[in-house]
Amino acid sequence: DSKLKVFSLNSNPELAKEIADNIGVELGKCTVTSFSDGEIQINIEESIRGCDVYVVQSTCEPVNQHIMELLIMIDALKRASARSINIVMPYYGYARQDRKARAREPITAKLIADLLETAGASRVLMLDLHAPQIQGFFNLPIDHLVGVPILSDYFEEKNFEDVVIVSPDHGGVTRARKMADRLKAPIAIIDKRRPRPNVAEVMNIVGNIEGKTAILIDDIIDTAGTITLAANALVENGAKEVFACCTHPVLSGPAIERIDNSKIKELVVTNTIPLGEEKSSEKITELSVAGLISEAIVRVHERQSISILFD
Amino acid sequence: DSKLKVFSLNSNPELAKEIADNIGVELGKCTVTSFSDGEIQINIEESIRGCDVYVVQSTCEPVNQHIMELLIMIDALKRASARSINIVMPYYGYARQDRKARAREPITAKLIADLLETAGASRVLMLDLHAPQIQGFFNLPIDHLVGVPILSDYFEEKNFEDVVIVSPDHGGVTRARKMADRLKAPIAIIDKRRPRPNVAEVMNIVGNIEGKTAILIDDIIDTAGTITLAANALVENGAKEVFACCTHPVLSGPAIERIDNSKIKELVVTNTIPLGEEKSSEKITELSVAGLISEAIVRVHERQSISILFD
Ligand SMILES: Nc1ncnc2c1ncn2[C@@H]1O[C@H](COP(=O)(O)O)[C@@H](O)[C@H]1O
Ligand SMILES: Nc1ncnc2c1ncn2[C@@H]1O[C@H](COP(=O)(O)O)[C@@H](O)[C@H]1O
Repeated sequence: DSKLKVFSLNSNPELAKEIADNIGVELGKCTVTSFSDGEIQINIEESIRGCDVYVVQSTCEPVNQHIMELLIMIDALKRASARSINIVMPYYGYARQDRKARAREPITAKLIADLLETAGASRVLMLDLHAPQIQGFFNLPIDHLVGVPILSDYFEEKNFEDVVIVSPDHGGVTRARKMADRLKAPIAIIDKRRPRPNVAEVMNIVGNIEGKTAILIDDIIDTAGTITLAANALVENGAKEVFACCTHPVLSGPAIERIDNSKIKELVVTNTIPLGEEKSSEKITELSVAGLISEAIVRVHERQSISILFD
Repeated sequence: DSKLKVFSLNSNPELAKEIADNIGVELGKCTVTSFSDGEIQINIEESIRGCDVYVVQSTCEPVNQHIMELLIMIDALKRASARSINIVMPYYGYARQDRKARAREPITAKLIADLLETAGASRVLMLDLHAPQIQGFFNLPIDHLVGVPILSDYFEEKNFEDVVIVSPDHGGVTRARKMADRLKAPIAIIDKRRPRPNVAEVMNIVGNIEGKTAILIDDIIDTAGTITLAANALVENGAKEVFACCTHPVLSGPAIERIDNSKIKELVVTNTIPLGEEKSSEKITELSVAGLISEAIVRVHERQSISILFD
């Protein structure tokens, strides 16, 4: 069969290395740098003719730079006669711009899908899309993995006595339900509402959290406003302790400060987005998705179903 | 007929303002900012339904940011029912990546063309493309303006006695010829060659420059290595004085320092790329292309030929 190659771009080289190690291949040789004027320069330093190439790139900050790196890499691979160009995007940037919420807004998540197709991608592997509908923005085969099992397994080992899984908003209830099934726990929902305009939001809690260990789960934590307010509301309303988890630690702006000052005891995230130095906090635990992704890559390459990875 | 609107993105707001003023319209209302995580947020604050929209954006540094701004803006305009989306790109970034010079290189100039089409552009207006072949990368109508008349008119007013127009390399001879025709001057060519590997290049001058005022012309001046070496070679070989000009002042890295320390008496550029504070030098004169571009926009909008602008 044709050869499998894994290439890393600049967003997440550690994860890419881990994935290649798991699969048992060397990372493909290429340099992705910039010319003096900031234009991206890509040199692929080994033949990839006829190969099935997997390119690992999270479109996290600096998001526009990382998107352009990915598009230019796809162009180079296409012209170098790769047999297939498989994009591994552990984090899909712009996923929250997935509909016109106001007049004359762009739908950038759809634009990115079109750009990837235009550049020449054959298939895209993603993890915990903000909205699963984004899969329909593509006319390519999409493999959509989920982080809930990895996060759940971590909490399972803690053997908490009395746990409740909490969704920080209505949009995340399905995800909380999935984790609750795995941990055989009940769920609760933070039901934010604004009684009148210009009046502070009320954090109403639907479900019983009294005396329980609460685990908040979300897909993305960005500025951490929602999650830290939710954690504090849970403690004020009688939760014994509060943990939080998410797949994608965007953690921009005041996020780290808010988390450090919040009632969250521990925040568990995955490495779809690298934390780096500015995003460090003693409260944060990072789990790796490399095992999940490398297994998916091997199964895709060997034409096996990946649905087993969702159990 | 349908309404003409001009919008500016973040690369060159002064030029966009000048163009709108020339045409006699207000700049369209929109804000182009970033979310906390660096994702671009665009709000178009007036209806553009059924309008012919002209978007002014040079894809200069930070080039990847400016390209993504442009693509997202096109997406927003398309979804807001613009009748036509006309892209005005005074400077086309990545134009030098227009062929595979080495194995496994991308052809990013073609990728950008495809991305603009995919996003929904109707037409593109450009100025002095690095290679005119880039027009063929598009399946859209392209209007390609040239900066030579603006640069030539400036030098014509100086009434030099004995002028020679010099191309700094073989690729620029056609451009030098055009300027020479306008100034009724002869041309010369810098014929760089490397006698043996690892030996410094020899700057051979083809043509008579002895005692003359030499005007070097190029399309892009980036790090200014070529142009400053050429200027010094001209003086060493007997030129009376050396001027230089280009359409696109990229001026990255050591450019300003090199120009200041060179034998160039004055460098004349246009405002397709704003100079900004870091790119200032007493030697630089900036001419505006706003008149040229606004005339082209008006003619395009009124379905008149723009070939008159090349005379
Ligand atoms: N990068 C971003 N940061 C913050 N808000 C965003 C971002 N991208 C999109 N949005 C907004 O978030 C909303 C969608 O979020 P959600 O309701 O959680 O799906 C939309 O109204 C967007 O305008
Ligand atoms: N932004 C850039 N800065 C410097 N060199 C570049 C840039 N983009 C492309 N190139 C290189 O410049 C060469 C093309 O320039 P030219 O020969 O003047 O057409 C190609 O070999 C490219 O690899």
